[in-house]
Amino acid sequence: MVDRASALQCCVDCDKPREACGVFGVVNNDDFDIARMVYFGLYALQHRGQESCGIAVTNQNGITGYRGMGLVSEVFSDRILDQLGGSIAVGHCRYSTAGGNSVEDIQPLMANYKGGRMAIAHNGNLVNAEKIRRTLEESGAIFQTSTDSEVIANLISRYSIQTDDLEEILVKIMQQVVGSYAVIIMTRKRLIGMRDPWGLRPLCIGKLDDSIILASESCALDSVGADFIRDVEPGEIVVVQDKEIRSIKGAVSSKPRHFCIFEHIYFARPDSFIDGASVYKSRLEAGRMLAIEHPADADLVVGVPDSGLTAAIGFSRQSGIPYGEALIKNRYVGRTFIEPQQKKREQSIDIKLNVLKEEIEGKRIVMIDDSIVRGTTTRKLVQMLKNAGAKEVHMRISSPPVKFPCYFGIDISSKNQLIAAKKTIEEIRKNMGADSLGFLSVDGLVKTPVGALERGFCTGCFTGKYPINPTEEDCSDK
Amino acid sequence: MVDRASALQCCVDCDKPREACGVFGVVNNDDFDIARMVYFGLYALQHRGQESCGIAVTNQNGITGYRGMGLVSEVFSDRILDQLGGSIAVGHCRYSTAGGNSVEDIQPLMANYKGGRMAIAHNGNLVNAEKIRRTLEESGAIFQTSTDSEVIANLISRYSIQTDDLEEILVKIMQQVVGSYAVIIMTRKRLIGMRDPWGLRPLCIGKLDDSIILASESCALDSVGADFIRDVEPGEIVVVQDKEIRSIKGAVSSKPRHFCIFEHIYFARPDSFIDGASVYKSRLEAGRMLAIEHPADADLVVGVPDSGLTAAIGFSRQSGIPYGEALIKNRYVGRTFIEPQQKKREQSIDIKLNVLKEEIEGKRIVMIDDSIVRGTTTRKLVQMLKNAGAKEVHMRISSPPVKFPCYFGIDISSKNQLIAAKKTIEEIRKNMGADSLGFLSVDGLVKTPVGALERGFCTGCFTGKYPINPTEEDCSDK
Amino acid sequence: MVDRASALQCCVDCDKPREACGVFGVVNNDDFDIARMVYFGLYALQHRGQESCGIAVTNQNGITGYRGMGLVSEVFSDRILDQLGGSIAVGHCRYSTAGGNSVEDIQPLMANYKGGRMAIAHNGNLVNAEKIRRTLEESGAIFQTSTDSEVIANLISRYSIQTDDLEEILVKIMQQVVGSYAVIIMTRKRLIGMRDPWGLRPLCIGKLDDSIILASESCALDSVGADFIRDVEPGEIVVVQDKEIRSIKGAVSSKPRHFCIFEHIYFARPDSFIDGASVYKSRLEAGRMLAIEHPADADLVVGVPDSGLTAAIGFSRQSGIPYGEALIKNRYVGRTFIEPQQKKREQSIDIKLNVLKEEIEGKRIVMIDDSIVRGTTTRKLVQMLKNAGAKEVHMRISSPPVKFPCYFGIDISSKNQLIAAKKTIEEIRKNMGADSLGFLSVDGLVKTPVGALERGFCTGCFTGKYPINPTEEDCSDK
Amino acid sequence: MVDRASALQCCVDCDKPREACGVFGVVNNDDFDIARMVYFGLYALQHRGQESCGIAVTNQNGITGYRGMGLVSEVFSDRILDQLGGSIAVGHCRYSTAGGNSVEDIQPLMANYKGGRMAIAHNGNLVNAEKIRRTLEESGAIFQTSTDSEVIANLISRYSIQTDDLEEILVKIMQQVVGSYAVIIMTRKRLIGMRDPWGLRPLCIGKLDDSIILASESCALDSVGADFIRDVEPGEIVVVQDKEIRSIKGAVSSKPRHFCIFEHIYFARPDSFIDGASVYKSRLEAGRMLAIEHPADADLVVGVPDSGLTAAIGFSRQSGIPYGEALIKNRYVGRTFIEPQQKKREQSIDIKLNVLKEEIEGKRIVMIDDSIVRGTTTRKLVQMLKNAGAKEVHMRISSPPVKFPCYFGIDISSKNQLIAAKKTIEEIRKNMGADSLGFLSVDGLVKTPVGALERGFCTGCFTGKYPINPTEEDCSDK
Repeated sequence: MVDRASALQCCVDCDKPREACGVFGVVNNDDFDIARMVYFGLYALQHRGQESCGIAVTNQNGITGYRGMGLVSEVFSDRILDQLGGSIAVGHCRYSTAGGNSVEDIQPLMANYKGGRMAIAHNGNLVNAEKIRRTLEESGAIFQTSTDSEVIANLISRYSIQTDDLEEILVKIMQQVVGSYAVIIMTRKRLIGMRDPWGLRPLCIGKLDDSIILASESCALDSVGADFIRDVEPGEIVVVQDKEIRSIKGAVSSKPRHFCIFEHIYFARPDSFIDGASVYKSRLEAGRMLAIEHPADADLVVGVPDSGLTAAIGFSRQSGIPYGEALIKNRYVGRTFIEPQQKKREQSIDIKLNVLKEEIEGKRIVMIDDSIVRGTTTRKLVQMLKNAGAKEVHMRISSPPVKFPCYFGIDISSKNQLIAAKKTIEEIRKNMGADSLGFLSVDGLVKTPVGALERGFCTGCFTGKYPINPTEEDCSDK
Repeated sequence: MVDRASALQCCVDCDKPREACGVFGVVNNDDFDIARMVYFGLYALQHRGQESCGIAVTNQNGITGYRGMGLVSEVFSDRILDQLGGSIAVGHCRYSTAGGNSVEDIQPLMANYKGGRMAIAHNGNLVNAEKIRRTLEESGAIFQTSTDSEVIANLISRYSIQTDDLEEILVKIMQQVVGSYAVIIMTRKRLIGMRDPWGLRPLCIGKLDDSIILASESCALDSVGADFIRDVEPGEIVVVQDKEIRSIKGAVSSKPRHFCIFEHIYFARPDSFIDGASVYKSRLEAGRMLAIEHPADADLVVGVPDSGLTAAIGFSRQSGIPYGEALIKNRYVGRTFIEPQQKKREQSIDIKLNVLKEEIEGKRIVMIDDSIVRGTTTRKLVQMLKNAGAKEVHMRISSPPVKFPCYFGIDISSKNQLIAAKKTIEEIRKNMGADSLGFLSVDGLVKTPVGALERGFCTGCFTGKYPINPTEEDCSDK
Repeated sequence: MVDRASALQCCVDCDKPREACGVFGVVNNDDFDIARMVYFGLYALQHRGQESCGIAVTNQNGITGYRGMGLVSEVFSDRILDQLGGSIAVGHCRYSTAGGNSVEDIQPLMANYKGGRMAIAHNGNLVNAEKIRRTLEESGAIFQTSTDSEVIANLISRYSIQTDDLEEILVKIMQQVVGSYAVIIMTRKRLIGMRDPWGLRPLCIGKLDDSIILASESCALDSVGADFIRDVEPGEIVVVQDKEIRSIKGAVSSKPRHFCIFEHIYFARPDSFIDGASVYKSRLEAGRMLAIEHPADADLVVGVPDSGLTAAIGFSRQSGIPYGEALIKNRYVGRTFIEPQQKKREQSIDIKLNVLKEEIEGKRIVMIDDSIVRGTTTRKLVQMLKNAGAKEVHMRISSPPVKFPCYFGIDISSKNQLIAAKKTIEEIRKNMGADSLGFLSVDGLVKTPVGALERGFCTGCFTGKYPINPTEEDCSDK
Repeated sequence: MVDRASALQCCVDCDKPREACGVFGVVNNDDFDIARMVYFGLYALQHRGQESCGIAVTNQNGITGYRGMGLVSEVFSDRILDQLGGSIAVGHCRYSTAGGNSVEDIQPLMANYKGGRMAIAHNGNLVNAEKIRRTLEESGAIFQTSTDSEVIANLISRYSIQTDDLEEILVKIMQQVVGSYAVIIMTRKRLIGMRDPWGLRPLCIGKLDDSIILASESCALDSVGADFIRDVEPGEIVVVQDKEIRSIKGAVSSKPRHFCIFEHIYFARPDSFIDGASVYKSRLEAGRMLAIEHPADADLVVGVPDSGLTAAIGFSRQSGIPYGEALIKNRYVGRTFIEPQQKKREQSIDIKLNVLKEEIEGKRIVMIDDSIVRGTTTRKLVQMLKNAGAKEVHMRISSPPVKFPCYFGIDISSKNQLIAAKKTIEEIRKNMGADSLGFLSVDGLVKTPVGALERGFCTGCFTGKYPINPTEEDCSDK
């Protein structure tokens, strides 16, 4: 399964960072088919993790669930969903950032503890998880998975010796764990959401009739017909019980906002609104800003499907250069990956994309992509356009050069694979064979509508300046 | 399997006609991995048929093959492809137009006859197949499948009693069969392509080094890095043996060209060139023409993904109204289809598409789609835009109203399901809730660049005027 | 699939001949669930073929069916069986004797011909099939499979030009085909059984309430609760229509009976009665006769599971030497075969069988097996007993040495793999490391109760005297 | 998966108790392919649990493993086994006695704790597990499975706070846990076996060259070619490190032996030796003793396949009545279970077994089975014999009536399903329609060779007298 999933990632988006997880939970105060609601929620969040998924439900028999390797549409069938009725539910889809993409690590994690039974789904990365694990092991805990959910479950259990009050326990946990997290915890009676104090990972609240939903992105609310209520705030704990939503704030001292800007650039679905900003609008504006910062004298603006298309429209609107299609994507890309073996010509062949010569030939092209990580795909695309007869290819990237790894839940290749960490922009341009190359500046990126809202971002992967020192193992809020 | 494939079709493209088949053949005069070459060729032709597929090869052991239900990426694995080496190969992917989507009908058909062993792959529909079957049965033939390939195989075998000359036999067959066909026949030594005298279905010739390829569309040539040589002409038989390509013409009297215009409108991949015209360009021009015939006073032009996007760009360029995205497609649509069960709100939920409110709200929208068959999806999309805050929705369709069934290889719903066969345009507009509705005229469609090449089209599905009388069972060329 | 099936055969019964096929048909004159009836019939006949299976039914929609690679319990599910209702049905299970174990060859074969639609299931081997194929090809037939069923279907179709009377046609076919066959043919109205004039392969008639059944063996009748009526006679055609059973005899001149004696020795299930004789009784008597022909001075009689157990009981009863168990079979032998890789000790390891040391140690053992083909398994078993402490091992085989191949539907290894074709009995004994070795004589075998009924047998694999000259291609009944 | 496994059990052995688990571990001091060795060991122990299985190995990367639902031959492939190399390994196969047959419960359990990483495989049932769980939860532990292995893992972790000495920890655990257990624990350096102080479940030690093996039964040693060394003694802890085997005894005060007599009657494979006694010999002697206690005036002794055959041979030898076969088992029983739907005759149909009328007709039959739980199968078998023409059927059972549930790892139906708990023997006889019925007495059973060794047995399921009070939750050794 490891191989299969890796192959998929590699062929579809091999030159992009990867998101780790999506979470979705519901308190069913109507008579909804809760398992199918979570199914469609996860389905809409599938872009956040394609390796494994699971759904846990609370019903008269307690907390039970079903989990498996694969896409939501592969793991769940009508027969399985029919067995997952209940009053509360939580789901998770996952791409593993760490090495361990084993069956054991599929979430939600379900466990019994002193306070009863719980299920936990986690998106993000705790930078002091290793230290907490060691401390817990020292006092007798065992760990069967490599997930942060198991760390949180053990902390809940450990703190429950001192108090029965789960909310008090979660406040203590928020004071202890350091890193990025958007966590959903389900007990027999409650659904609880927690978002890290920096707001690194997204989490929002929705409503469908009397039922209340927590989800990584608002697009998942749309997918089930629910209304967006608000984002969970950085450092907030949201407790949903029956029809009531309670908020616990101030568990940790206030931190400067550091929302992950890559969610806007690439990860999040364009139809999501995160922390008040439209992801689509952010990308459109990034394209506009790119046209201002790095104009080009050209005949046609094209985007790299699918994530570069929006910025390309923005660039076209700002520059007045016509927008067009240049690259056609095969709609039937499967998960298994058969390697072409025609060595001689491989530079010009791509089974996932083909060039529209008719539109390209003899023209000066501006090609927009949202980001470059290793640069191999971009080089190939430039060549494809040139082979198709483009007179010039001006490459424009609607985000700054990625020069540093991410420690907060995004899987960016290690630093020595990052082309921008090793080469100057001119070297990259040459390497790609482009006639010109421009990256949006960090300032430009932050000036997109997002910026207008006086919001703060984590730009660690561009600047190396992280909100939390990732090497300092314990920077907890004491 | 029937259910699964139907479900797929239904959810992804339920309001579109369906193509029947794609064919791809190679004579390997180099040391290519022929099975993988056909694999990638079929992969690029997957849009022409997703129900089943197969590959047959000629090697030292004779003709052998592998066939199965499902997508190319599902049916074939590295292990299977490794066993399919050879010097000639032919592949087929299929969506069944007739009822019989059984395992028996998976192509290529392989059979022994007096002249040895052959494999046949067929795209199209013979209107006198039933009559030929009855005639052959009268003289002792049996039929194990419902494919036209088996009809052709039996005719080859029957005529081989009179002559050993396969080319002579194929000339006779071309004189006898009536309907649309793009057929590839493989023997131990030859690969033969035949295209019907009206040119209803496409077939082209390509070259990769010394190897020669026949394929339904030129995009399949691109996918293996081959160069496009030319289209097979209507009524032409092309015989490939080793490095030689021979052409037999004049088997039947010259017919007026009647290429299927729906290939340009919807079926063919936009990156294909068919009979000298770029499919992409045809769609772009259809969009332009639509803007001339049915202008709209609006703020934004949007296309229905994926096949309406190109015409939308054309409409935008002609009208000067900005192009934008409005509908976001879930990239992880699986083949299994779980039905949402939240009845109350179903009108506003679509798990495959979501609306970009940010871009739509308060605007007057022109929404472009390439065709309307039953109209149910279009109605839903108009509602989604209105719900998202569109002030006005002007629906524009870049082809004429589909009022008649197709008898030549395209699966259009029966006449009483065609919304345009039952309602006036004004009635359709009301039904959809659109503020205005315009279809491209037949004249306008024919005036697209395609028309400029003085090419003839079959417009039977729009006009009811077919090149061949589909009810007259025998209109063969005597 | 080839590999998997071969592996199975190899590990379970690698030293035995293999049967080719089982057939089962029903005319449903009650309201039985006909598909499940055929399912259970094939299930009981599974020992006759484990590679593939299929069921065809006649219902209001004509003749339809389902076929697949694998065991009956693997190919059919409740969902599939639910779709196979009807008034007549025919099923088939198959192990392919010829090379072609492809999907195409799965039976029953279904085909349309001048007279309508038919389904055919065949057990046996036509020795003049190749000649008939060539003749039919000369007159225009094509062949898509390598089965004899397709030969018969083409003959039916060809003769239907001359007459509409199917029974007349089948008489002609019986006059033309030469070899072994137990065939079931299903049309829209009739179920027809045909048995070759020598009676080489078995076929019997049963009844359940008003419904009539044809089956390879009577154990299949038992499995559905039906009563045995009678065997189909050699050279007889049985036509079942509604509640009527009609018999056509004399189509070919009377032949001496040559029932396959290996059915009694090994293939048929012991609970079957064939041509009036109990298979169990035959084996018991073969064991008795063996004790008379080759007595042994020993302490314990043991059989090789499963097919040697009955003869061992017979040997014990005749000799007075106690019967016991010595070899324990693993009940959970799966289809996939993982090779042990501990070379050093492999002679003493068998993952399918283990020795009961407690029962063997210090004793003189008579070990009975029903037959020896290559001899490798027997050698291993003798060693296992010796290693377990047996003082002496006296090997007794309840059939004569197999020295010649079979041309009539049984897959015996080619002559140069037959140990008895290359070595004397003393050489075989030494090779096996047994203290003595005795084979039942041909005369002794024929004197079993079977013989008492003045029945004739084909003993070709022991004597090389075949009822039909297998190399003379046409010895038809003219 | 639940349904499938249940169906299997139901159809094959629905009237038998079920074993819970088999364990197998190896310290590889040679260059054996350790994963395949465990594979074949589990394969030989498959009768102890068919629901799920797993293998964990220690290699240079630490402890890793693979686990899945299904038979050993279904879960593991060559590809998976190739990835499981190492120096120490432990495997487990499982049928779940408790309700939770979920994926989470598949063993071996792998976990990190203060002392490193470990894997645990457990056979048996801890009667105070619930109490220990609650105690551990009170001090902060979480439980993700319902297995006793997780209880033991948590105890190890908890005691490791006080000491690093794993052996000291295991002594403490043995003092705390109450119930039946045969546990194998693997660490980076050691393989440790523990057997409960009553010796309820079996565990033995074997040797292959320099490698040392622990296994539930000796038949698993045979399957890999290893030699039996000795049984692990009740209350013993065996520590294997490299080539050294160390024994820790006296952890708990000496208990009277209470080996599970049902292992000898039904569960264990007949080719195993347990605690010095041959299982085969026990069954043979039980048959002899039965003939003494309950003689019958009859013509033929037959056994119910497969587990009743040995006792039938013993009965025949003692009584002088000839032994024969009466019931033929279908060799191709699959895992999926299609229900016959021919209501009218269902009493006489069994798709798994058929009667040999030839051998039965007109005779007085003694039919031997090893045990009766619910009695439904036995009733059916008596009817089958009568229908086949048996003049009399004398039912003899080679164990006492099962009247009480088991709390020590065997899944016997709840008390109200046990026919002997509700009816007198005469009532059971009538219910079955047998002419006479005799059960072996408890005294008789204990007098079998087993008894000769002055060994003690748990006869709780016959007498209700258990070695441990199953309701008293804590009867630990303090």
